[in-house]
Amino acid sequence: MKKQKRIRDYGITIGEMETGINNSITDVKEVHVGQVTLDNGETKTGVTAILPHKRNLFKKKVIGATYVINGFGKSIGLVQIDELGTIETPIILTNTLSAGIAADSLVRYMLKDNEDIGKDTGTINPVVCECNDGYLNNIRNIAIEKEHIFQAINTADKTFREGSIGAGTGMVCYGLKGGIGTASRKVFLDNKEYIVGVLVLTNFGELEDLLIDGEKVGRKIKSETKNYSPTENKGSIIVVLATDIPLSHRQLNRVIKRVYPGISKTGSFTSSGSGEIVIGFSTANIINHYEKQDIIQIESINENKIDEIFRGTKEATEEAILNSLITAKTTIGRDNHKIYSLSKKLEEYGIDLSSNLKA
Amino acid sequence: MKKQKRIRDYGITIGEMETGINNSITDVKEVHVGQVTLDNGETKTGVTAILPHKRNLFKKKVIGATYVINGFGKSIGLVQIDELGTIETPIILTNTLSAGIAADSLVRYMLKDNEDIGKDTGTINPVVCECNDGYLNNIRNIAIEKEHIFQAINTADKTFREGSIGAGTGMVCYGLKGGIGTASRKVFLDNKEYIVGVLVLTNFGELEDLLIDGEKVGRKIKSETKNYSPTENKGSIIVVLATDIPLSHRQLNRVIKRVYPGISKTGSFTSSGSGEIVIGFSTANIINHYEKQDIIQIESINENKIDEIFRGTKEATEEAILNSLITAKTTIGRDNHKIYSLSKKLEEYGIDLSSNLKA
Amino acid sequence: MKKQKRIRDYGITIGEMETGINNSITDVKEVHVGQVTLDNGETKTGVTAILPHKRNLFKKKVIGATYVINGFGKSIGLVQIDELGTIETPIILTNTLSAGIAADSLVRYMLKDNEDIGKDTGTINPVVCECNDGYLNNIRNIAIEKEHIFQAINTADKTFREGSIGAGTGMVCYGLKGGIGTASRKVFLDNKEYIVGVLVLTNFGELEDLLIDGEKVGRKIKSETKNYSPTENKGSIIVVLATDIPLSHRQLNRVIKRVYPGISKTGSFTSSGSGEIVIGFSTANIINHYEKQDIIQIESINENKIDEIFRGTKEATEEAILNSLITAKTTIGRDNHKIYSLSKKLEEYGIDLSSNLKA
Amino acid sequence: MKKQKRIRDYGITIGEMETGINNSITDVKEVHVGQVTLDNGETKTGVTAILPHKRNLFKKKVIGATYVINGFGKSIGLVQIDELGTIETPIILTNTLSAGIAADSLVRYMLKDNEDIGKDTGTINPVVCECNDGYLNNIRNIAIEKEHIFQAINTADKTFREGSIGAGTGMVCYGLKGGIGTASRKVFLDNKEYIVGVLVLTNFGELEDLLIDGEKVGRKIKSETKNYSPTENKGSIIVVLATDIPLSHRQLNRVIKRVYPGISKTGSFTSSGSGEIVIGFSTANIINHYEKQDIIQIESINENKIDEIFRGTKEATEEAILNSLITAKTTIGRDNHKIYSLSKKLEEYGIDLSSNLKA
Repeated sequence: MKKQKRIRDYGITIGEMETGINNSITDVKEVHVGQVTLDNGETKTGVTAILPHKRNLFKKKVIGATYVINGFGKSIGLVQIDELGTIETPIILTNTLSAGIAADSLVRYMLKDNEDIGKDTGTINPVVCECNDGYLNNIRNIAIEKEHIFQAINTADKTFREGSIGAGTGMVCYGLKGGIGTASRKVFLDNKEYIVGVLVLTNFGELEDLLIDGEKVGRKIKSETKNYSPTENKGSIIVVLATDIPLSHRQLNRVIKRVYPGISKTGSFTSSGSGEIVIGFSTANIINHYEKQDIIQIESINENKIDEIFRGTKEATEEAILNSLITAKTTIGRDNHKIYSLSKKLEEYGIDLSSNLKA
Repeated sequence: MKKQKRIRDYGITIGEMETGINNSITDVKEVHVGQVTLDNGETKTGVTAILPHKRNLFKKKVIGATYVINGFGKSIGLVQIDELGTIETPIILTNTLSAGIAADSLVRYMLKDNEDIGKDTGTINPVVCECNDGYLNNIRNIAIEKEHIFQAINTADKTFREGSIGAGTGMVCYGLKGGIGTASRKVFLDNKEYIVGVLVLTNFGELEDLLIDGEKVGRKIKSETKNYSPTENKGSIIVVLATDIPLSHRQLNRVIKRVYPGISKTGSFTSSGSGEIVIGFSTANIINHYEKQDIIQIESINENKIDEIFRGTKEATEEAILNSLITAKTTIGRDNHKIYSLSKKLEEYGIDLSSNLKA
Repeated sequence: MKKQKRIRDYGITIGEMETGINNSITDVKEVHVGQVTLDNGETKTGVTAILPHKRNLFKKKVIGATYVINGFGKSIGLVQIDELGTIETPIILTNTLSAGIAADSLVRYMLKDNEDIGKDTGTINPVVCECNDGYLNNIRNIAIEKEHIFQAINTADKTFREGSIGAGTGMVCYGLKGGIGTASRKVFLDNKEYIVGVLVLTNFGELEDLLIDGEKVGRKIKSETKNYSPTENKGSIIVVLATDIPLSHRQLNRVIKRVYPGISKTGSFTSSGSGEIVIGFSTANIINHYEKQDIIQIESINENKIDEIFRGTKEATEEAILNSLITAKTTIGRDNHKIYSLSKKLEEYGIDLSSNLKA
Repeated sequence: MKKQKRIRDYGITIGEMETGINNSITDVKEVHVGQVTLDNGETKTGVTAILPHKRNLFKKKVIGATYVINGFGKSIGLVQIDELGTIETPIILTNTLSAGIAADSLVRYMLKDNEDIGKDTGTINPVVCECNDGYLNNIRNIAIEKEHIFQAINTADKTFREGSIGAGTGMVCYGLKGGIGTASRKVFLDNKEYIVGVLVLTNFGELEDLLIDGEKVGRKIKSETKNYSPTENKGSIIVVLATDIPLSHRQLNRVIKRVYPGISKTGSFTSSGSGEIVIGFSTANIINHYEKQDIIQIESINENKIDEIFRGTKEATEEAILNSLITAKTTIGRDNHKIYSLSKKLEEYGIDLSSNLKA
């Protein structure tokens, strides 16, 4: 498959920090991503699964946290993450009306590998986040089935594609085609290299507000477009942050709040109808389901050194959003709804991002 | 069907306030409750649906709020209630591993009656709460199906039974059989009568902690029992509070926090493994999905007068829990797990609640 | 000074767990308490200072957390504890209108011992909690001055008196004289003994609601009293929890929520006008202000073992409240306002708590 | 006094919405601002008071809300605003170590005008926010006294100056001189004009991050500066939002969250050491302290129309921050610490903001 052209390939460098090796959430060791795309006729949707690791997540939980920027959303599993500070399943992204079936399927997936759940020990907390892809996708047909969830998890890999794929298949961002994007940053602590990685599912914003590294690109496209018909400013963005930096639940919570400045840098004012949810996890401390010691050791960061992680979070979020836009493809969905890609529009208007920004 | 003997029939009066006409959550005008019970072999589970009203809830939303006492739980839909302060579907109670399928089914139910959802307007926020009935129920078989959810909603009525029924079929509370319970209190404002109604799904607590109106009944039972084998102290309580008192989202949030003193009066210390979730709604102000005015009028209470509602909430919660216990039946579930009813144990030990308390 | 008669001396044993050696918050190693009482004419108020340790708290912070049960209160310093999870000053309790001057004084106290604050490093977060003693105390004269704060801190000791003393001098609880109370419980982890200690400043509740270990003592007193004139049900309770158990910020937050069941067991429904605030700290992990390592080690508890701490918190809170009531003295304050002590009322009505409860 | 040159006078227009008549928080009817500046030798600090109205605020409360972006701060009064949803005193801004004395002074101010407080009714909740001006100001001398608080309130007016004045006297923002700034936007509802007004106290950010309407101005200044010595990235921003739009507490809370995108647009990633606090109030519904009716009417907005308020909040926040920077003056404070003004730096580097941005 052809390598995708990402925002850096257009001459745009977000921020100052060094990226991870693939500028991807999977730069965090053990993190894998799997995607299933449903693209036929009126069905433009899919599933993206993020696995903190490929071992038994129920038995080997990771430290997790959530941050609700705007709660007009139907994400599942946040209550328990907030209480216990752990994530014990893969994180599933899909469309809004399929969140229930996705949670059901994720439960069945976990039961399959854990005969003790619900029998000899407690139950399981499925984590599902969603955006409304109803402008392009016939969301009412609830196309996602158990097999799609299983497949997304089972095919999770270190490399994955961005843009109109997986859960991003039918998403619309800043009036352009949105979807899946990723980016990462390196952070150095005690002379050791760590990674902050971000994956976004973008489905928010109005075209006129779009900024690319500060440049009002959205306004340029709009002002020169005659037949522009704004899509409803309903949407969402889901952000998943992964890191191998040792962070406590509270510290992780602070880190993932810095996703918001990253989103804001792309221009959005965070509209009311947009469910903006962040889920973060750190793979550095594993919490055993059957822990034998009463007192355990947790590594965490000296909080005086947390700013670099904050900055990396902002930068990676902004870049991941731009990657989701620039890799997405023009798409025609249900009822002939058509959404153009950013790359198409840049070409159409002869906008050269790199030269433009240097002018 | 035989009338159930409730805690007042045993001579116990909780608190000082007057009850509503049926001492039930359905004393709140327009509120209805429907239940489906699955009781065959290893399957001891079910569904309880609470309808704020029987009109179109998506188009005519009620003001809602949530309060997480202990978030070791998998309830669905809380994020959006917290953000927008409204409830737009029936509230479904069921077992933990069926929460996903219940949410999926509830979405399908709402789509059926609203052709605009996901097409001409936004999506829908299903509200599902759950407890783990895995001690009696083979929870791993995920017995709940779409039809059960539909049936529970469609058969919702003003009268309903308590104890081992609906979502309460397999629940265990204070080491005794728990389940569904309800109670209500009258509140007078500007010389008008209002109702605070509470419905509980009880699945929490250890026998030794059980108090009945302050009396250490749990300890009596325990101390005289030779072969007592404590069930795991994992569980939950779900509390749904309904009222026709005009309350803002913030005020409703304050009111439902007073569920916690009501729970505590029955003796529990709120164990870690117990997901204790409260959902409240007020039917007094209807929020139109397609509101035409930009500025709307909301009635709310003069906060100086809110204490009587707080007191009523505490009293009704405590009484609803006791009703769930006293109406439940001794049950044998999966793997021959047997849980005795409170009434059976009172009889066995010759405990007369009324005389006992007057002594 | 004469030893005070506490609730256990009346034959009342709250719960099942073993107390610490003095059944006091200072059973937690290094914790000290100092008090200054202002009792002359219309002035019935004071200061109670809780020191997590006597070393330099700014340089050696303890892990802290807060929990707002009901936020009708003016406590100071909670925002930063919630964000950073640390406490860096003694905790000062006083009357509501003196909270500002107490915070100012506490800042000056900390500046005195730390020449770097506000010059070579950041500032300091003073922690002050308060209740309204305005029924007995002429609170409008703001009697607390810098010297009282300094003195309370400087005289902090392992032993301290309960009842009508320090910040508790003018407090009213369940219509009776309230004030300062304390209790503690032992918790065993990995075969080692730890302590959960609680100190309360009680100023809440209505007489008719008072329960002593489940017994409706408040109603008995009331029903037999002719000239009972209820004081306004405005008030508060401040609870400070100390422990040497290693807890993360999140875990500590979970622990201090179990203060609420303890309060509720004494009968209150948590009225609107009552500011109920909990501050907790663990002395097990010290956070260095000038930490040199980027990654640090934190001990925390295996969450599967947290229930015993929850239970201890509930028990100690309930007992500390009862201790505050039973040790307090009948007091006549401003405008001849008179509040009787519980011990006086028990005597007057010939109530024998121990026999009563055994009946 | 000479009119100050604001960011619009440099050719910069933030966003698309129309400003209020003076582009100021005082465009909201009844809102007044008073300031006291202490500028002598090592003392570079002051007080800024925002009055929601000039009537009796304790008796006629306004609906209020708070939002903590980053809680490394010592603001006072937030707990009660969150619980009761009202503000009952002027809002005082000052330096961190003077927050206690400011709260004490504000209490005394309110007592003066309300003989019932603490005697015949409850107490008062003073609202004080702060930033650390310790780089320029000798903050350890706690220069603020009662008279300054009284004077700031008593001299509050519809017009007030921005930049290095009042609480802004010693503040540092993006490595440049910060301080007080303001801006406003018009919102039309049911064909009626309303105002969203914002006042900021800016003391945050690193020079390299500063963006002016997307332009990386901070980096330009830095890259060309030889002797640039970065100040510690400790700081804060306090944002006060006022509006005459009818909003419930919950809605107001949603609105003030959109301050964060406005801050982020100026470039900051929200560092750990920065206490970023937002306080909002709506003057549209007055809550009477002695309300006689049990049920009251509250106007609120149809939530489908809230997006324009969100956008206005973002725009006004961004512009207020830029106004605080562009109006501030180069200042030499304690220990010869010198901070340059933005206007001085623009001049020094020959940066023409308007031409620059059009290029």
